[in-house]
Amino acid sequence: MQPWEFLESESRRDYGIFFTRIDQLKSPRTGHVLRRVVVEAPHWVNVVARTEDGQYILVRQIRHGIGAPSLEIPAGMVEPGEDPAVAAARELVEETGYESSSLRLLGEVFPNPAFQSNTCSIYLAEGCRLTREVRQDDSEDIQVELWAWPDLLAAVRSGEIRHALMIAALFYLIDAGEAPGFSQSVG
Amino acid sequence: MQPWEFLESESRRDYGIFFTRIDQLKSPRTGHVLRRVVVEAPHWVNVVARTEDGQYILVRQIRHGIGAPSLEIPAGMVEPGEDPAVAAARELVEETGYESSSLRLLGEVFPNPAFQSNTCSIYLAEGCRLTREVRQDDSEDIQVELWAWPDLLAAVRSGEIRHALMIAALFYLIDAGEAPGFSQSVG
Repeated sequence: MQPWEFLESESRRDYGIFFTRIDQLKSPRTGHVLRRVVVEAPHWVNVVARTEDGQYILVRQIRHGIGAPSLEIPAGMVEPGEDPAVAAARELVEETGYESSSLRLLGEVFPNPAFQSNTCSIYLAEGCRLTREVRQDDSEDIQVELWAWPDLLAAVRSGEIRHALMIAALFYLIDAGEAPGFSQSVG
Repeated sequence: MQPWEFLESESRRDYGIFFTRIDQLKSPRTGHVLRRVVVEAPHWVNVVARTEDGQYILVRQIRHGIGAPSLEIPAGMVEPGEDPAVAAARELVEETGYESSSLRLLGEVFPNPAFQSNTCSIYLAEGCRLTREVRQDDSEDIQVELWAWPDLLAAVRSGEIRHALMIAALFYLIDAGEAPGFSQSVG
């Protein structure tokens, strides 16, 4: 399948957490020229983090897209030049005060390939211990919570947890054989 | 947890598939005033669709966010006033030519509550039959493919399938007991 021919980019705008640009693209099938918005966001990470006694470290914060609180796994943006695994460990300790003895990549997704250019790397952090106090800046308002797996799963089923990137992380957790109670007979 | 106080919206811009606006918000914790971009997108749907003989109906298309082909389940936008289930059935037949005898809601996610306002409803369509020819407009270039479950799972593991909203759909498929080979001992 042939990519569309790139003609030009225009109207690049800085929105702080991402840039938008408009690409002019030409269809290889019909020759039709389209203008499409692309959201250029940095590489993102999120982390399924478990304490030494198997509790899940979640963060609850007001999310301005929906104007309401959202219960999620720790997540954030990779800094320019930063290794995504380093970013995951950094976001975990910055948001929650927990540090992990073991971090591994579960999967990598495109948050939205239809109009976003970026990738999100999903990690599993185990053996987490509380090592620091959380320091929030003026723009943050994060509450750290420890959840047992059955309660977390119930919160997904009730819709309390429904950030798509968190739900995607749970798929990879199951597929890695790391989700309590889930098993595979094939694959 | 208290939402931030909404002060005003400004700079609303139309990007065709979404609008952006800048909200001024005041922190209930610190009184600090923030300006945050919100992407106003319509309600979205996607559909895990299976044929009568249990094959999965996927679509491959160039996605302009990543400038590359992406293998996905059928998906689209809900029209104003349209029922999401109706939109799911409509997108399925428009993109693939298949119609389903049975459609049910698997889950509802926020694609990205950090800056997007919208929801994506995820459906399971079973017993799908090819009833129409696919008609693509000039801006589309969609290839319809039938995949057996083990191959689909292998494509997720290899990274060929990695649209986060599709991976989220697979979580709900597993949790509904509808993913071949996956089972739960509790929950």
